[in-house]
Amino acid sequence: MSGLYLEDYAVGQRFTSASRTVDTEAITTFARQYDPQPFHLDDDAARATIFSGLAASGWHTAVLTIGLLLESDFVPASGIVGAGFDEFRWPQPVRPGDTLHAECEILEVRESRSRPGQGLIKVKTTTLNQKGEPVLFFIGNLMVPGRPA
Amino acid sequence: MSGLYLEDYAVGQRFTSASRTVDTEAITTFARQYDPQPFHLDDDAARATIFSGLAASGWHTAVLTIGLLLESDFVPASGIVGAGFDEFRWPQPVRPGDTLHAECEILEVRESRSRPGQGLIKVKTTTLNQKGEPVLFFIGNLMVPGRPA
Repeated sequence: MSGLYLEDYAVGQRFTSASRTVDTEAITTFARQYDPQPFHLDDDAARATIFSGLAASGWHTAVLTIGLLLESDFVPASGIVGAGFDEFRWPQPVRPGDTLHAECEILEVRESRSRPGQGLIKVKTTTLNQKGEPVLFFIGNLMVPGRPA
Repeated sequence: MSGLYLEDYAVGQRFTSASRTVDTEAITTFARQYDPQPFHLDDDAARATIFSGLAASGWHTAVLTIGLLLESDFVPASGIVGAGFDEFRWPQPVRPGDTLHAECEILEVRESRSRPGQGLIKVKTTTLNQKGEPVLFFIGNLMVPGRPA
């Protein structure tokens, strides 16, 4: 697996992913398996809900974002291993036909106190649709390996 | 859809879900589609990583938790609609054979300022494995409808 080591990250660095379009089939396939609620499954059923039409599961938006990051220059050498988030918001839903990309900014880079050779980076990530509207925002804490000696 | 309205929630209420066991097939099926990293796909490949063996994607742990909550007494009348999280951590990975359940506590209940008839609840949720170890912890903000007049 290629990718970056702790020493390659610096505060203020920015990364932008490629774009991907989400269709109805992808939205309902995810929902049927993992978040089977009416507003994620069927446009008619969704019209009567707070979403006023079919909307992707927020977890689908999250994994779409991780998929975009895994194919980007941002990816750490050991993959994307998250410890958690300081903030995590879905400002608005993803709709069928939306084209998403993710933008990251490195907020913090530090060595792990408990695991020698490992580090932690804090990354602000925003996933945007084709209108430039944010559909996911998070500040995530990722584990990143130090460069082997 | 049955479930609870804003007026049914109160600070301090607790809910406990049923339990579900996760097997290798479920872990690798999710990962192949949505988080295709070696430590989520193959036990041998995972041994050389920070996980030291096959581990479920954290997003899989998240949707398993939502699935447990959707079948619990906690579920709001309009389904589980999250605005985001104040805190979100994966304290440790889910392994094949783990049996998970989720525990919720209501931290805050309030009417929405911007949407009449809607409310927000703040919910502390912990997902635990069969040893009582937390595998997911979050404080989530959910949109909940007021009871129809």
